[in-house]
Amino acid sequence: MRIRNKPWADDFIKENEHIVEQSPYSQKGKWKHVFQEDQPIHLEIGTGKGQFIAGMAKQHPDINFIGIERVKSVIVGAIKKVKNEDVRNVRLLNVNAKNLSDLFADHEVDRIYLNFSDPWPKKRHTKRRLTYHTFLEQYQKILKPNGDIVLKTDNRHFFEYSLVSFSKFGMMLDEVTLDLHELNDPKNVMTEYEEKFSEKGNPIYRCQAHFPEKQ
Amino acid sequence: MRIRNKPWADDFIKENEHIVEQSPYSQKGKWKHVFQEDQPIHLEIGTGKGQFIAGMAKQHPDINFIGIERVKSVIVGAIKKVKNEDVRNVRLLNVNAKNLSDLFADHEVDRIYLNFSDPWPKKRHTKRRLTYHTFLEQYQKILKPNGDIVLKTDNRHFFEYSLVSFSKFGMMLDEVTLDLHELNDPKNVMTEYEEKFSEKGNPIYRCQAHFPEKQ
Repeated sequence: MRIRNKPWADDFIKENEHIVEQSPYSQKGKWKHVFQEDQPIHLEIGTGKGQFIAGMAKQHPDINFIGIERVKSVIVGAIKKVKNEDVRNVRLLNVNAKNLSDLFADHEVDRIYLNFSDPWPKKRHTKRRLTYHTFLEQYQKILKPNGDIVLKTDNRHFFEYSLVSFSKFGMMLDEVTLDLHELNDPKNVMTEYEEKFSEKGNPIYRCQAHFPEKQ
Repeated sequence: MRIRNKPWADDFIKENEHIVEQSPYSQKGKWKHVFQEDQPIHLEIGTGKGQFIAGMAKQHPDINFIGIERVKSVIVGAIKKVKNEDVRNVRLLNVNAKNLSDLFADHEVDRIYLNFSDPWPKKRHTKRRLTYHTFLEQYQKILKPNGDIVLKTDNRHFFEYSLVSFSKFGMMLDEVTLDLHELNDPKNVMTEYEEKFSEKGNPIYRCQAHFPEKQ
């Protein structure tokens, strides 16, 4: 997506410290105290403009949601969405998701959402894909035993790659859907991308996979 | 597929005993002696009219192929295909594939092909799907350790089901392709179904998955 620079983004982020965690690294291991309620934590990596996380937070008040989005001029959109939905169970982090272990203690997270992640189609960029094994190692570390990943994408090759990558890592597939919108699931919360792509008639792929208990 | 009865099928099968194994159960554990060459055995379950197995046998003279097809009036088509290709590394079995352990000794088979298997879409027929766990147990028994399954289908729900079933069984996905013909692989040997469905523009799904070493 082409990103327009937004000079006011810095100020807007600071003004909304009840939504954007201002010093996220200092909350490692203490996230449950950040939220009003001590309940499961679901993490979205690459929150974009926030339609998914805001909608999910509204639909699931019994879950605490954390969204990571590194691009300032994008996260401001997510802040607005969360404000509009008037939900208290969301925190946004304006950081790079590369070093999740600096943000979360072991087993601090219950589920990870990967929505329409950059597919990095070139072979030499494989390592950057969010389902590359080095990322899976990080996810496994911060997730509870048997924690799971829920992935949605419209990119066929990224989906094929991710299924194999999960499997090679020893993860179990709990669910695979090759045309999500055929299901007409009223509980499916769409991301902005998803809305756009599915309107064009492109299939949306989804899978849910969990890590084995560590041995 | 609508199957026309062919009263001459019985005789035709008997006349071609060099292609159709007449007493397959007595060959259990001895298949390598049935073929001219002692080489890996690949088994196709549901051989249909035989375009796949005949084409594969021609393409891979270093593999012995066994095709199971229970319907007499269908297997005669496969016999003709094998005769036309003039290959010596194929045997066809006119039996039900339900009890594979009566046909093959443990570890006698190197690979299993499932091509456009009946999807049995109704939930109450799940047990009949050739990727239901009771079948996987049988495949694992007759396959060599780390033996694999190669599955092709045009049926999305059967494919989704099979990926999850493989994974739940502890199998590893080695390859997943959600649009086989996009790859334009000149080595892909098409079944009759595959030709028909892909001409309509339907995607063909393929996956390759292997069993773990038994513990």
